[in-house]
Amino acid sequence: MTEITDALRITRSVRLADVDPGSKPGFVGDKLAGQQALAAGAKRLAELQERLYAASRAGDERAVLLMVQGMDTSGKGGVMRHVVGQVDPQGVRIKAFKAPTAAEQRHDFLWRIERELPEPGMIGVFDRSHYEDVLIHRVRGLSPADEIQERYGRIVEFEREIGERGIRLVKVMLHISREEQGARLLERLDRPDKHWKYNPGDVDERELWDEYMEAYQVAINRTARASAPWHVVPADRKWYARLAVHELLVEALEAIDPQWPTADFDVAAERERLVALGGVPVAEDAPLPKKKKSKKKGKKQS
Amino acid sequence: MTEITDALRITRSVRLADVDPGSKPGFVGDKLAGQQALAAGAKRLAELQERLYAASRAGDERAVLLMVQGMDTSGKGGVMRHVVGQVDPQGVRIKAFKAPTAAEQRHDFLWRIERELPEPGMIGVFDRSHYEDVLIHRVRGLSPADEIQERYGRIVEFEREIGERGIRLVKVMLHISREEQGARLLERLDRPDKHWKYNPGDVDERELWDEYMEAYQVAINRTARASAPWHVVPADRKWYARLAVHELLVEALEAIDPQWPTADFDVAAERERLVALGGVPVAEDAPLPKKKKSKKKGKKQS
Repeated sequence: MTEITDALRITRSVRLADVDPGSKPGFVGDKLAGQQALAAGAKRLAELQERLYAASRAGDERAVLLMVQGMDTSGKGGVMRHVVGQVDPQGVRIKAFKAPTAAEQRHDFLWRIERELPEPGMIGVFDRSHYEDVLIHRVRGLSPADEIQERYGRIVEFEREIGERGIRLVKVMLHISREEQGARLLERLDRPDKHWKYNPGDVDERELWDEYMEAYQVAINRTARASAPWHVVPADRKWYARLAVHELLVEALEAIDPQWPTADFDVAAERERLVALGGVPVAEDAPLPKKKKSKKKGKKQS
Repeated sequence: MTEITDALRITRSVRLADVDPGSKPGFVGDKLAGQQALAAGAKRLAELQERLYAASRAGDERAVLLMVQGMDTSGKGGVMRHVVGQVDPQGVRIKAFKAPTAAEQRHDFLWRIERELPEPGMIGVFDRSHYEDVLIHRVRGLSPADEIQERYGRIVEFEREIGERGIRLVKVMLHISREEQGARLLERLDRPDKHWKYNPGDVDERELWDEYMEAYQVAINRTARASAPWHVVPADRKWYARLAVHELLVEALEAIDPQWPTADFDVAAERERLVALGGVPVAEDAPLPKKKKSKKKGKKQS
C-alpha cells in the first residue's frame, strides 16, 4: 500500500500540469477495491492513533499534523468525514482556517497557525492553512509581492522547526480538474440540500483557475523538502483521494511507531490492592482472569 | 426506539439504588440486536448533524451539548469512540475536563465550562463537566459544604440560561456497578496495552464508591428539570449504554429539527453564470443533469 504514498511524494518540485487529476498513482484496483482498502485499513489507523495518544500519556511529545489544501469542491470535507472520521474523535482536532479575523490580521500570518498546532499524542488536521497566505494572497494581490516571496522561506523555516519539536507534518494538495469542479459546483446548485455549500464567491475564484494552479505550483516547489514533502493527490476520483490520504496518515504514524507505555506503577501490587478491596469478580488467589471468559459466563451479556 | 430515551429520562428525582446497572430499559433485543441498531442508526444521526451544521450557516443559532458523567471505567471513552465517532468530526467538539488548572481555579467553577460551550450548529461533547464541582468536591471535601449547596442552584440557573440561548443539553450519567468497575480495572491491569489507562488514583476513588453514588444522586435530584433532564444510563453492558446515548443524541437533534437552509442567492442565475464560464460537463441548454448519470458515463470512475 505504501506504493501510493511513494508515488505521491514530492520532495523537490512538480509540474501540476503533468499530474492527471483523474489518475490513481500507485493503486491498480477499481473504485470498489479502493473503498474496500479504505475500510480494511480503518483498524490499523485506529490502533496507531491510540498508540500515539497512549504514548503521550507517558511523556512522548510527538504528534501528527495533516494539512489539507485544495480548490473549492476538491473534497476536503469528504477527507475529514471519511478518513479523519475513521479514528477516535478524542485523538483528533480539526481546525478550519477561514479568512483571518481582524484580530488575526494584526499578527504575523503564522501566529494563528502556531496556536493550533497539535498537542503531544494528537492528530491535528488543518482544513486550509498558512499556505492561503501565499495562494489567495498571491492570486488576489492581498499582500505585496516581496512579502509573499519572504513567506515561502518563513514557511520552510517554520515547518522545519515544528518537525524538530516532534510534529510530523503531512502536506496534501487535493488536485481536481477544472471540469470536475464545474460538475461539482453544478451538483451543489441542482440539489437543494447542497445549496448551503454553494457560495457565489467560489465561482469568482474559479475564474482565476490558472492563476491558482500557478500559485499552488510555486508554493509547492518553494516549500517541498525531503523533511517536509508535499503530496499532490489526484482528486477527481473521491475514493482514490480518500484512500491516498488514509495511506499518508498511516505512513506518518508508522514512521513515529508509537509504543504502548510501560506501567509506571507496580502492576502486581495494584492487582493485590484491588482484589483486597473486594467487589472484584475473581477469587483472591485465582489465576489472572480473561475478560472474554467472564463475558461468556455472565448472563447479562445477552 | 424512543422507548429507550423515555425510559431513561429523569425530570425530578431518582434513587440510584433502584436502577440496575445491568438492565437495558426500553430495549428488548440482545447484544447483537443492540449493535445492529446502533450501526443502523448511524446514517440518521449523521444526516441530522449535517442539517444542524448547515442550518447554522444560515443563522440558526441552535446547538447540542452532550454531557457525559460517570465513574472511572464507566465507558465514557467508548461513547466518544462509538457514538460521537458516528458523526462528521467537523461538526463535533469534544472537551475533556480534568482537574482544574491553577488559572482555572482562580475563576468561578462555571468559567471554564462557559468557554467550551458549542458554537451554533455544533455538537459539543463534555467528558466530565461542571458536575465534578459537586461530585468529587463533595466526596473529597474540596469545597465548603455551603458553597456546594449554592452550586446546585447556580447549575440549574446556568443550564436554564444556555437552554434559552438555543443549546440543547443532554445530561448522561453512565451508571455501572461496583463489581463491573472491579472487573474493568482488573482487565486494565492484566493487559499491557491497557496499562496506560490505569491510574492507581482510580482505586482511591473506588474506595469511596458509596459516597460517590450518594453525591451523584443528590446532584441529579437537585438539578433534574423538565427542561434539563438527567438520563441515568445502565452501563454494565457497553453495547446498551452506547445505543442509549446514540438514541439520546438523535432525540435531541430531532427536537431541534434543523432544516436545510434555502439559498440566499439566485440559483438559476448562478447556474447560468457557471455554465457560461465553460468547463462544465453539460451543454448550455441541456436539462439539469443528475450527478449519477454523469458518473455512469464517465470512464474515470472505475
